[in-house]
Amino acid sequence: MKKISILGATGSIGTQTLDILREHPSEFKLVAISVGRNLELARKMITEFNPELVSVQEYHDCNTLKLEFPKTKFTFGDEGLVEVAVYPSADILVNAVIGSVGLNPTLQAIESGKTIAIANKETLVTAGHLVMEAAERNGVALLPVDSEHSAIFQCLQGEQEKTIERLILTASGGSFRDRSRNDLEGVTVKEALNHPNWSMGAKITIDSATMMNKGLEVIEAHWLYNMPYEKIDVLLHKESIIHSMVEFHDSSIIAQLGTPDMRVPIQYALSYPDRLPLKSSQRLNLAQIEKLHFQEMDVNRFRCMKFAYEAGKKGGTFPTVLNAANEVAVAAFLDEKINFLQIEDMIEKALSKHDLILNPDLSIIQEVDKETRQYVYSLL
Amino acid sequence: MKKISILGATGSIGTQTLDILREHPSEFKLVAISVGRNLELARKMITEFNPELVSVQEYHDCNTLKLEFPKTKFTFGDEGLVEVAVYPSADILVNAVIGSVGLNPTLQAIESGKTIAIANKETLVTAGHLVMEAAERNGVALLPVDSEHSAIFQCLQGEQEKTIERLILTASGGSFRDRSRNDLEGVTVKEALNHPNWSMGAKITIDSATMMNKGLEVIEAHWLYNMPYEKIDVLLHKESIIHSMVEFHDSSIIAQLGTPDMRVPIQYALSYPDRLPLKSSQRLNLAQIEKLHFQEMDVNRFRCMKFAYEAGKKGGTFPTVLNAANEVAVAAFLDEKINFLQIEDMIEKALSKHDLILNPDLSIIQEVDKETRQYVYSLL
Repeated sequence: MKKISILGATGSIGTQTLDILREHPSEFKLVAISVGRNLELARKMITEFNPELVSVQEYHDCNTLKLEFPKTKFTFGDEGLVEVAVYPSADILVNAVIGSVGLNPTLQAIESGKTIAIANKETLVTAGHLVMEAAERNGVALLPVDSEHSAIFQCLQGEQEKTIERLILTASGGSFRDRSRNDLEGVTVKEALNHPNWSMGAKITIDSATMMNKGLEVIEAHWLYNMPYEKIDVLLHKESIIHSMVEFHDSSIIAQLGTPDMRVPIQYALSYPDRLPLKSSQRLNLAQIEKLHFQEMDVNRFRCMKFAYEAGKKGGTFPTVLNAANEVAVAAFLDEKINFLQIEDMIEKALSKHDLILNPDLSIIQEVDKETRQYVYSLL
Repeated sequence: MKKISILGATGSIGTQTLDILREHPSEFKLVAISVGRNLELARKMITEFNPELVSVQEYHDCNTLKLEFPKTKFTFGDEGLVEVAVYPSADILVNAVIGSVGLNPTLQAIESGKTIAIANKETLVTAGHLVMEAAERNGVALLPVDSEHSAIFQCLQGEQEKTIERLILTASGGSFRDRSRNDLEGVTVKEALNHPNWSMGAKITIDSATMMNKGLEVIEAHWLYNMPYEKIDVLLHKESIIHSMVEFHDSSIIAQLGTPDMRVPIQYALSYPDRLPLKSSQRLNLAQIEKLHFQEMDVNRFRCMKFAYEAGKKGGTFPTVLNAANEVAVAAFLDEKINFLQIEDMIEKALSKHDLILNPDLSIIQEVDKETRQYVYSLL
């Protein structure tokens, strides 16, 4: 039985991870979780799964829950995240928090030898070189939870790295895929949150609409699969049925397909190297779907795509700036402080103002992350 | 360096196998071939590849060539096929002959420990139980060359048999895919030979038009992957871009894609477990293709599909009858002795006349094969 801890248990990936644990009670046991401020959901989880350790965001929530669940250990804040990440009896850490807040706990979990199921793409984007170096040094596996990276991971089973010609990440196009740039000026938050294929958290849904989500995934794929940016392509595929593909040097392409269901990649990461049944997942019926569509990525329509490739290729602190600026800009859009197209403008300004620092250590990354956030706040 | 022998070197698969050898002279060496009656092409092959042994169909052709190539060993006829199949210095036998004539040489090659790259699907259809038993007993690998079975084989790398939910063979629909049954009455041989996606030999092109090719592939897949017929589906996919797929029990599907190019599966079989580069193969550009189409298989439109599933499920000698009747009927159609829809009628008559023999040995299979051929000839 594998023992599981989850950072971000009440979020979209977190709750779907619990679905998987519920489906396979003899395979997995939940031992530690972090939750945010959704105490109602946290209470249900504690009652159902009885984790040994629970970390909450705020100190006072910690005290409230302690009185209700006297046998459970509670902690809180950033240190609480780390406690969950390194919880001794856990085998696998599912990192499902949002944003670069996931970085430090991930690094700590790697140092304590946990297998990492990584849904928190910002961690790899902002400090991929540190994460991959630590993982290699500790002999730790980083298992992707994103549907695209899980697809690539599945396609690579039984294959050799040297035979890879390119990775092809598919992109649904997000909420506004059928609109031209000119039609994006006055879009509302509600419209942006209406993703055609996937039900996901707010931040990633906005990132899908700007295509920054795919940009972050390109950088994540660069680190996870040790692949130069020239060998990572993005293809628009509006049905989100082919989750991604790998082309090999004999021109053969292996692809992973399925109905959009995040529980499939989550379960694959938890069960790897095995593949467990998932009876409740809806089977793909291609005859019913009839057609799959493909289209080239247009970096003028989706400027964030261009920013991400540029930041990735420049390397050093640029992806940190890209990610931090995006996090602040998306939050500002969700708060209705800026309009949709201003997200791109904020990121562009932050990137053009930045001077590259190569091979940044953790403290430099944290400093650049903080400076970038302050700068973008100052623009609001 | 792997040493290669080829049965059927002057056919479509044979010549494309030589393309692969030409592309990788330091990986593969041709040691033995069988050719039919195309002496002109045989001469070119002998000059270019200098095989040690050449088998021709007719005795007098053997004598003619001996005078021209005094250093080469020549043989002929059915025994010649076996000599090539068991040629001592060969590591891999590419079986690219057409029809059940490939059966005996394949069994002999297996007994002498050769790895078999199998393009001759009739061998597995007519005597799958004997071939698989011999392969297992001799620890011999049967590597698929058909694009569909190679696709499945590639998709299964790194996966476990127990996790397979079903195999999904794709079918282009052949030359008449856009015609209704009523429009098939008067079709000509020339029209039937005009396959929309693949350039192949005459027999397999007709088999594609009747859908018998896919039916034979279903039976072949049953044997190659130890899969019950209930777990083998056929999906119409007119672009022939997805070559086949495997669905696993977590609902995840792995597919193999590419432009239609038989050299890819041929090379994969020769290079397995490695994957060699194939620079001359055209890369797939899905954005250029724009759409992939899928449609359910209609067994009323394509009756051979139904015959094949029924014969496969009944087992025993039924697949032998299916295959033998089809070989004779297709040859009769190519000779313009019967019309297109009569191919199905001949097969149906042969199947309905046959009494099942379970677990037939080689002599019974050969007897049933011969009887069936005589019966279908008598109908012409």
